[in-house]
Amino acid sequence: MTPHPINITPKQLYYSNKQNNVLPTKQHCLRVKKLINIEGQCAIYMKGKDEKTRDNTDVDMEFRQESVDEPGFQVVFDLKSERVYLITPNVPESDIFWKGPNHNSTELLELYNVDEIIQEEDLPRLFHTLAPTLTLVLDDQHANHLMNMMPTLDIDTQLLTLAINESRLIKFPWEIDIIRQVMHGSSQAHIALMQQFQPGMTEAHLAALFRWSCALHQIYNQAYLPIVASGPRAATLHYSKNNQKVPNESHSLVLVDAGGEKACYGSDITRTFPVRGVFSEEAKTIYNIVLKMQQTVLSKLKPGIFWTDMQRLAIRVLCDELIKIGILVGDQDELIQRGVPSAFYYHDRLCYPVVVLLKHLLQTLGLGHSLGLDVHDVGGKDKKLTNQQEEDDPTITEFLVGRPLEKNMVLTVEPGLYFNDAMLDIWTKFPGYQDYFDLQMLTKYRNVGGVRIEDTVVITKDGYENLTLVPKEVHEIEKLMNAK
Amino acid sequence: MTPHPINITPKQLYYSNKQNNVLPTKQHCLRVKKLINIEGQCAIYMKGKDEKTRDNTDVDMEFRQESVDEPGFQVVFDLKSERVYLITPNVPESDIFWKGPNHNSTELLELYNVDEIIQEEDLPRLFHTLAPTLTLVLDDQHANHLMNMMPTLDIDTQLLTLAINESRLIKFPWEIDIIRQVMHGSSQAHIALMQQFQPGMTEAHLAALFRWSCALHQIYNQAYLPIVASGPRAATLHYSKNNQKVPNESHSLVLVDAGGEKACYGSDITRTFPVRGVFSEEAKTIYNIVLKMQQTVLSKLKPGIFWTDMQRLAIRVLCDELIKIGILVGDQDELIQRGVPSAFYYHDRLCYPVVVLLKHLLQTLGLGHSLGLDVHDVGGKDKKLTNQQEEDDPTITEFLVGRPLEKNMVLTVEPGLYFNDAMLDIWTKFPGYQDYFDLQMLTKYRNVGGVRIEDTVVITKDGYENLTLVPKEVHEIEKLMNAK
Repeated sequence: MTPHPINITPKQLYYSNKQNNVLPTKQHCLRVKKLINIEGQCAIYMKGKDEKTRDNTDVDMEFRQESVDEPGFQVVFDLKSERVYLITPNVPESDIFWKGPNHNSTELLELYNVDEIIQEEDLPRLFHTLAPTLTLVLDDQHANHLMNMMPTLDIDTQLLTLAINESRLIKFPWEIDIIRQVMHGSSQAHIALMQQFQPGMTEAHLAALFRWSCALHQIYNQAYLPIVASGPRAATLHYSKNNQKVPNESHSLVLVDAGGEKACYGSDITRTFPVRGVFSEEAKTIYNIVLKMQQTVLSKLKPGIFWTDMQRLAIRVLCDELIKIGILVGDQDELIQRGVPSAFYYHDRLCYPVVVLLKHLLQTLGLGHSLGLDVHDVGGKDKKLTNQQEEDDPTITEFLVGRPLEKNMVLTVEPGLYFNDAMLDIWTKFPGYQDYFDLQMLTKYRNVGGVRIEDTVVITKDGYENLTLVPKEVHEIEKLMNAK
Repeated sequence: MTPHPINITPKQLYYSNKQNNVLPTKQHCLRVKKLINIEGQCAIYMKGKDEKTRDNTDVDMEFRQESVDEPGFQVVFDLKSERVYLITPNVPESDIFWKGPNHNSTELLELYNVDEIIQEEDLPRLFHTLAPTLTLVLDDQHANHLMNMMPTLDIDTQLLTLAINESRLIKFPWEIDIIRQVMHGSSQAHIALMQQFQPGMTEAHLAALFRWSCALHQIYNQAYLPIVASGPRAATLHYSKNNQKVPNESHSLVLVDAGGEKACYGSDITRTFPVRGVFSEEAKTIYNIVLKMQQTVLSKLKPGIFWTDMQRLAIRVLCDELIKIGILVGDQDELIQRGVPSAFYYHDRLCYPVVVLLKHLLQTLGLGHSLGLDVHDVGGKDKKLTNQQEEDDPTITEFLVGRPLEKNMVLTVEPGLYFNDAMLDIWTKFPGYQDYFDLQMLTKYRNVGGVRIEDTVVITKDGYENLTLVPKEVHEIEKLMNAK
């Protein structure tokens, strides 16, 4: 006879790889406290998300929020006493039959590293006892939730977001450990795709194979919808329909941008491989330009370096190489100053002439981004660019402007080179720009489609550690794909 | 050189298995028109959903709505002329670089079987031309969207839902064909789980294996979050955490309730198999009771039969068998009248004494449900039960009350038998009920956990077709699991 229907041992749960087998909530709270630096009695209040169902149905959607894998929880952190209170949701009694029993208080205390578990109805009493002069929340919705219970609270909705974003930019060692582990499994899944690829496969099949290969490494979620873009679709940056058959031309490539997620921490890797197992000459040339962009940037990474300099460096390499193979014509400085390389590499805020045409229409991810609980993590993006900054450097993005890299930042390095017909149509026909492009050479390389190579790295004391373990040299990829 | 970045051929898309390779929108519209049966100039307006991202991020969630696999579309159906207008969303120009080009009008006309494509800004002009005396919409949100543009429209928010729900209850032959196809692939995935199960596997691994096995049959979505409930968790009806290791006791079972989805049509199958590849004597006894419940019901299915009679029949079989093996003690009629079998089979609206204790707390899925675009499909549930009906029969559910089965209804038949400790605790201790249970016999069978067997069937002219192709006899399952 089983004493309890579900005997959940917290240590068996997701967090088995976090420090001391629990989620180190307190560490996060203390770092945020340091960043807030307010005098007086101050409390932080956060509210978790509720479960969602598909519209008008009882079909649950996959639940996902940062940090705690369960819906409906709330947290209060008293900055003075440094005590963390976890407020458990009121669930319908019948949930026990439908969804199983919830953790009891002892399990929750251990699992989430908090000081006290309280019920939702005790929240006003808690605030009455703490008597904060200021309460920090993330947004108006959370503020309203509190105000409904306690109309006299003094609430700020700005400071907390800034502090949390800043706190999340620099990772704790245990966070890096989890990301390293997810990156390992996701790397193996990318390798599996190269090894198991067969002509005739569909993009959807490869996406499913990626998920399955992650599962074989105990990774059951994805940090984002996998992008499997074959042939010309590789030049569509956020293609995730994955509903086409992979072409089988000698020049065709498959671009796979995918990464698993575990214990809410993501990973992010892109690899591009040839459908025939061997790169065509043109594909190899384009691929190696992107690889050179990445390796040049990687070789510079260390604390103190400015990310905007890395972006300029990548564009300089790209421009130089495109001149060498004859697609671009003209003086390197002039081409860069007029933004011409962005015709092929439009991750960044666009240069002239497209700034003029499409300003603010394109998202700006740039050469890379912070990674953590979100794949495009919050840190380092909270600064609004000034008009002066934009004017000074039209290739500037919002990530890490005006601040150097620091130890324990986790970020991606993901240069690309794309032949997007719609984009090239604009550039090559724009008055005053036609002469920069050799259309015959463009035609020669155009059906390569697109290449992106993306690694996730962590900045170390005097350099970086590459958390990505998927081969990326042309000969390595060809060897992987042809080993039977 | 590729002429277009994405050369989408509609016929290659999802709908390749629908009639004439397109989505037969018009058929649906005409059936709804028949059900609405209103005099005068009447228009129907529907608005599709927009894409969603994870909170505060740019990570897309998987997009899903009924019928059209793309976000942001709107539809107007003019009942008089029977013309269908598809209103395409205004997408940012830059979407072409990030998400690829959208279908052009010619492709949309063919793909979605509509008469005319119009732009959002032309919607007021269309309504001005149609000049409907009444416009039917699904809900207030859609009504508000129209009223903002055209404040003088006369809008009804009730009729359309009723007509669509009714229309969806009876399937078109091409809908049954798609469901048959999804059921086939999902059946193969269930078989794969039985064949590939190994001791030491986790629930999460089995859930991932199910998804992958579906993908091997070109099914890339799930109709609902798979339930892989091993050991005592099999008695938690909507368990979908799937985060435990499968136990390896001789009596332990794994309950898998999962079904793929294709072209928005779902499937629904549950199988329960022994972790050792062989059922223990107790597990076999319990399993065969559930199988007998299902087979007794299946043998009766045909047009004209009432579903509520089937529910009563299943409970009668259950009660009879539980008396035979000694778990329940007493007169069959009395036990049923007092609702005692619901201690082990609480899909249904609960009988006494739990009606008294937990009335309205439990969802009521009952012995089965309609299946189609939603796994718990909308049809046949629109009637509110009267107090009299509830009083007359506390086991009654909301599905197909007071109407007989009809040809081309697709529904599930899913009896179960569960040993849920929390539930049994209530029943066996409830005043006046203790004598109905033999606690010693209960203990003997209790660690079997739970069994559910679920097939999806379509009602035919004079019986039913079982769309489920997974073996379910004890000897068949044992043979599957032990064939190497």
